[in-house]
Amino acid sequence: MPQLLHHKLDPASRLIRLMFAEYGIEVSLVDVAPWRRDPDFLEINPAATVPVMLDEPFGPVVGVLAAIAHIEANFGPEGHIEALLPENGTERNEVWRLLEWVLLKLGPEVTSYLLEEKLIKRDLRSGAPEPSVIRIAKANLAEHLAYFSWLLATRRWLAGDTLTLADFGLAAHISVLDYMGDIAWEKAGEMKDWYARIKSRPAFRPLLADRIVGMPASSTYADLDF
Amino acid sequence: MPQLLHHKLDPASRLIRLMFAEYGIEVSLVDVAPWRRDPDFLEINPAATVPVMLDEPFGPVVGVLAAIAHIEANFGPEGHIEALLPENGTERNEVWRLLEWVLLKLGPEVTSYLLEEKLIKRDLRSGAPEPSVIRIAKANLAEHLAYFSWLLATRRWLAGDTLTLADFGLAAHISVLDYMGDIAWEKAGEMKDWYARIKSRPAFRPLLADRIVGMPASSTYADLDF
Repeated sequence: MPQLLHHKLDPASRLIRLMFAEYGIEVSLVDVAPWRRDPDFLEINPAATVPVMLDEPFGPVVGVLAAIAHIEANFGPEGHIEALLPENGTERNEVWRLLEWVLLKLGPEVTSYLLEEKLIKRDLRSGAPEPSVIRIAKANLAEHLAYFSWLLATRRWLAGDTLTLADFGLAAHISVLDYMGDIAWEKAGEMKDWYARIKSRPAFRPLLADRIVGMPASSTYADLDF
Repeated sequence: MPQLLHHKLDPASRLIRLMFAEYGIEVSLVDVAPWRRDPDFLEINPAATVPVMLDEPFGPVVGVLAAIAHIEANFGPEGHIEALLPENGTERNEVWRLLEWVLLKLGPEVTSYLLEEKLIKRDLRSGAPEPSVIRIAKANLAEHLAYFSWLLATRRWLAGDTLTLADFGLAAHISVLDYMGDIAWEKAGEMKDWYARIKSRPAFRPLLADRIVGMPASSTYADLDF
């Protein structure tokens, strides 16, 4: 069984967990706090990031892009499961456009800041959260939510008619932000209905059971009727 | 013929140009300064980033990840050309690990800052470069160069024995940084020999001819014997 070195509130790790769960592949989870820079972990991934997948006889599968490629190549959907990366070129390009948005814009402009201020600083005892950073990240978040709500006003799923990796990529971030209480659901527009549908999928259930010691989840986090 | 909306000093656009050139595919280039947020361009890509590929009958191919997937699917290597994404799983995972490093670490920690301070502020007339930002970006760059030199001490190419997309991903950034005079070649270790080999490939030649009006290239930029 493949092993996944992950952190419970790391969005990229959550994307890979959702992908495994949707494809019905069992994976054994190992908790890592990559920012503690444990030497044994740095030897596997000098970038000090998760996810890292261990799947003999392959070498370590480091990072979210490698994990996506590895899962598609080795655990890809059989006939009875819908593919998370569409066969059709135009649809697949749309999935990659949105995944890139999540990885290269939403992540660095919003989620990374809030995780740094609320989770990592607490874990490393390296000071109190900086209110000005949190304020900027939340202002950025409002713009991202507006864009995704606009898209979802005319689409059932983020990239079109079917659920894809783009939905899981965004839902992974939203779930982490929701855990920390950073989503104003009353202002979330079309995204609320979309997230309710994602949240009720069996693949999502294990994520909703995750808890960080000393850092309780928001009241909406595990509530399917939020 | 596919069109590529790009900027001459955008590293992600350069990666895609190198990929096209190495596979021997002609592409028509259209200059865009995405930070000017031209409404016609934002309609194609609300993320205001390049590259964007136009390749009928497909919809716009937005972003570097979509472009890589699109090229592999539609213009991929024929028998006589070496693939830039290896077939072998362990090797392909290593290519994705390094591409992620370049896209999610080297880019945001180094190249984006230096392009913002030196190119974009100048183009938008939005103020002088901030020396403290440049200093931090160059300190980060030194750490990245040390890591890649360490890798290249035991490898002919970045991901192993053959040239891959990881080499083009890194070379795209190094070439932009070199244009701006930000690479201290006398301290670049094993990377210098590697970059000399990349630079002498036919695929690289068009990039070395690029110039930005009012922003001359460094003396080493187009020199094959730097």
